[in-house]
Amino acid sequence: MKIALCQLNFKIADFEGNSSKIISAINEAKLKDADLAVFSELAICGYPPLDMLENKDFIDRCIESIKKIAEHCVDIAAIIGIPIINENEFGKKLYNSAVFIEKGKIKSFHNKTLLPSYDVFDEYRYFEPNNKWQIIDYKNEKIALTICEDLWFEQPVENSYTKQKLYTVSPIYELSKFSPSLIINIASSPFSITHSESRKNVLCQNAKQYNLPLVYVNQVGANTELVFDGGSMFINSTGNVFNELKYFEEDFKVIETSSSEKNISEKELSNNEKIYKALILGTSDYFKKTGFKKAVLGLSGGIDSALVLVLAAKALGYQNVHALLMPSRYSSQHSVTDALMLVSKLNVSYDLVSIEPAFSSFESSLIPVFNGKQPDITEENIQARVRGTLLMAYSNKFGNILLNTSNKSEAAVGYGTLYGDMAGGLSVIGDLYKTQVYELSNYINSHGEIIPRNIIIKEPSAELRPNQKDSDSLPDYNILDKILYYYIEQKTPLNEIVEMGFEKQIVEKVIKLVNSNEYKRFQTPPVLRVSSKSFGFGRRMPLVAKY
Amino acid sequence: MKIALCQLNFKIADFEGNSSKIISAINEAKLKDADLAVFSELAICGYPPLDMLENKDFIDRCIESIKKIAEHCVDIAAIIGIPIINENEFGKKLYNSAVFIEKGKIKSFHNKTLLPSYDVFDEYRYFEPNNKWQIIDYKNEKIALTICEDLWFEQPVENSYTKQKLYTVSPIYELSKFSPSLIINIASSPFSITHSESRKNVLCQNAKQYNLPLVYVNQVGANTELVFDGGSMFINSTGNVFNELKYFEEDFKVIETSSSEKNISEKELSNNEKIYKALILGTSDYFKKTGFKKAVLGLSGGIDSALVLVLAAKALGYQNVHALLMPSRYSSQHSVTDALMLVSKLNVSYDLVSIEPAFSSFESSLIPVFNGKQPDITEENIQARVRGTLLMAYSNKFGNILLNTSNKSEAAVGYGTLYGDMAGGLSVIGDLYKTQVYELSNYINSHGEIIPRNIIIKEPSAELRPNQKDSDSLPDYNILDKILYYYIEQKTPLNEIVEMGFEKQIVEKVIKLVNSNEYKRFQTPPVLRVSSKSFGFGRRMPLVAKY
Repeated sequence: MKIALCQLNFKIADFEGNSSKIISAINEAKLKDADLAVFSELAICGYPPLDMLENKDFIDRCIESIKKIAEHCVDIAAIIGIPIINENEFGKKLYNSAVFIEKGKIKSFHNKTLLPSYDVFDEYRYFEPNNKWQIIDYKNEKIALTICEDLWFEQPVENSYTKQKLYTVSPIYELSKFSPSLIINIASSPFSITHSESRKNVLCQNAKQYNLPLVYVNQVGANTELVFDGGSMFINSTGNVFNELKYFEEDFKVIETSSSEKNISEKELSNNEKIYKALILGTSDYFKKTGFKKAVLGLSGGIDSALVLVLAAKALGYQNVHALLMPSRYSSQHSVTDALMLVSKLNVSYDLVSIEPAFSSFESSLIPVFNGKQPDITEENIQARVRGTLLMAYSNKFGNILLNTSNKSEAAVGYGTLYGDMAGGLSVIGDLYKTQVYELSNYINSHGEIIPRNIIIKEPSAELRPNQKDSDSLPDYNILDKILYYYIEQKTPLNEIVEMGFEKQIVEKVIKLVNSNEYKRFQTPPVLRVSSKSFGFGRRMPLVAKY
Repeated sequence: MKIALCQLNFKIADFEGNSSKIISAINEAKLKDADLAVFSELAICGYPPLDMLENKDFIDRCIESIKKIAEHCVDIAAIIGIPIINENEFGKKLYNSAVFIEKGKIKSFHNKTLLPSYDVFDEYRYFEPNNKWQIIDYKNEKIALTICEDLWFEQPVENSYTKQKLYTVSPIYELSKFSPSLIINIASSPFSITHSESRKNVLCQNAKQYNLPLVYVNQVGANTELVFDGGSMFINSTGNVFNELKYFEEDFKVIETSSSEKNISEKELSNNEKIYKALILGTSDYFKKTGFKKAVLGLSGGIDSALVLVLAAKALGYQNVHALLMPSRYSSQHSVTDALMLVSKLNVSYDLVSIEPAFSSFESSLIPVFNGKQPDITEENIQARVRGTLLMAYSNKFGNILLNTSNKSEAAVGYGTLYGDMAGGLSVIGDLYKTQVYELSNYINSHGEIIPRNIIIKEPSAELRPNQKDSDSLPDYNILDKILYYYIEQKTPLNEIVEMGFEKQIVEKVIKLVNSNEYKRFQTPPVLRVSSKSFGFGRRMPLVAKY
């Protein structure tokens, strides 16, 4: 059978837009003599729709859309992800479903059984799990249709402290009892640096175990913090990838299930390439899908804002990015010259605005209030907030969205000012530890210097008091980032991190900083997620607790 | 049987503190000859522990604590809520459980079956549902032990667009097959203005339906946005409340299950009393549990900040609250005099700092950047951010937590400045619509004027440009708040709101404002929840979508 894998970028709740993409792909599939066109999970409305699913008119529009699309399915069948109403007397009101459409009619619904409800996933909030099993009989194929997590009965257990399996039922095992000839899995599986590899392993393992070819269609494109990386594929019954679609962009391919020809054009991306592409896609989709074109950011002369500027210029076009250089009395000369070198290299516009006048005004106004109290971190924060206010003023006046330039190490230990450098509409590198910021910058420079070398080699500093260095208050980033990784991503307890060879005092200090700064991270912009545990929606810690 | 209802205020992860409270209550129960002491859901660690449950050492400490507590249960039994590890091969790694302790030993575990995963609840994220049924046999009673939602097989369906029942199994029906003589339900059921009534109805309904007396023990106290209101009770087998514990404070009572004496001392609280007590408890617990004592807030002379000041002075003590008065060139004279009248009435300290110098500095610094562009909302936002910066400077210098003074109407339509008046550590009245702000203020004044009458009667204004009034850009609050209520709490579609008699153009405008301001609410402080749908954790809308 000839199957069209339709890997598309959907916008949440854009029913006209999503439907018209789906119909175009169906028409293209027909032109290429495909028997079946396959689309990703919840393709009709985009993934994740979150609490929009609780609105009746949202579900009504999903149904309207699928009916219109069905009319186009003549001489071709289609499989499309859609939320549908649970008509039973008991259970949650929706299913996360896939419709099988043939001869212009909806022939059957196939509901998702395993509903991920961990990290960034909340599917059990909305959906009732399936417990009925049926096969699609179509043109001599017997298709076992599954949705994303349904093939993840075997979960990687790396971060878990117990060994049991997460789920109590294996949908593909249940479907295998009907002797299917083909597995189809439609997914909306977001990218993370560890996930793209384990995903391929799980899919190949399923194909091999059940001795069946497997068609996998994933969503591509970013929706706020989640970046969907595509990478749809066709795997043969021995568990080998025979065909693979592009990563981080829309793609369309027709495969022949009986083919024994390996046809992989895509080369494996390095981790830095993946992160680079994910952040570019995440940034550009945030703008495209919100209808904004232009960005502004504060360029300090340090590595973080330099990297964000490069990514933004790539994602949005250099002419759509504006930099504000906002030196203070504590800024070193090279901060400004390094920043100027970068804007000139990227050809982006900039303004240079000293924060001195506003900072001095605040200092004077506060003299009677502070009543002789010595300068401390307060004055550092005022400088950061003056910058935040200038950036937001630019944003308000010209309609540029402020890009946040904080990294994950800073966010983790609270080394940043709420409403100051922690402000912005989108955090571009907030899921990269400082050491990863350097790695990605070096990767970007590997084909010719873009980020001036001096920005990369100089010692990190917030420049909020004389001769300040990050290392005055934080451990070396090589050590800090490892401790953070074990504590945040791996959830390793304090004593076990110490046993790995880190100094106890440092580990205690770092963990205390992470815990005591939950309140700051609560109010930060959405962070483009590239790790298995980013700050934001997938990490839900109490603000008030004994840590 | 004599049962001690132990209604306590727990801090999340405070194992020593929580255990010592539990042990004290057990000892008091023994002194009063109780046979059994009953504690609330997840009493060991406090509710909701959120992702702390994913840390192995967190669970280890729960187990350690319960073992120590068990040693104190001689000559008395106890029922205590605790997360335990699921020892089965399949399913999520934890149960939300209740232990029955007798003769110093843990006798049995009773796991929760119905795991709420809607609004502010994420229990399916952590817990495997129970599917085994057992009864506690103790001193001639056969106890059907259930945990919170387990008695909510019948859900109020007010906000749902389908009529089916949310769950597929009724734990109390299953347990009723064992012919129990008593139902015990331990809960951590947060307050909302609609919930306290429906909770009592559901519990009485269960007692009546199964013709069994019912002991209900709820958590009390606030954990960040959630306020638990207590109100534990004993209901007889005909479904009448025979004994009720206090609302919004810790309480302890020993009841006799065979007693036929009605003994309700608590009078029914009015809605405004409930909201008042909830916000006081929410504020004071936020400070107590984070270890802070002092608050600061911006006092504009308007009703919102006036109300927050009154609540804060009550919750924290007038000597722990500081007000900043920050007039601008657009402030009316009465703004300052009204504010001064209030601080003097409440005896709280204050500073008066003009925002004019810093605002002018920003204006001057931005002249070359703005390049002749006319004043617009940008300049209004700068003023709000100057105030935010002054407040945060005070907070940083003196360690006072900034209280946010935004109301729900403003937050809903985005009538506020991110990093300006939307800043703060805690939003005290962020779940009150403007009309509710007035109602609560009038309630506070009903026993003698506290909030100056002029603050209540004057027309609302942000005072960010000459002669500005809220009504310049927003519909009348009486209309706005109703539309918001239907759209946010009731999820009523646009056309149905119009059919209720509201002007179509206004409804469209309001809904558009709500939708286009999700990004602002994403970055606001935690909001004390008093409604069935507050902004924050229980409302998860996509930031990027076609609205």
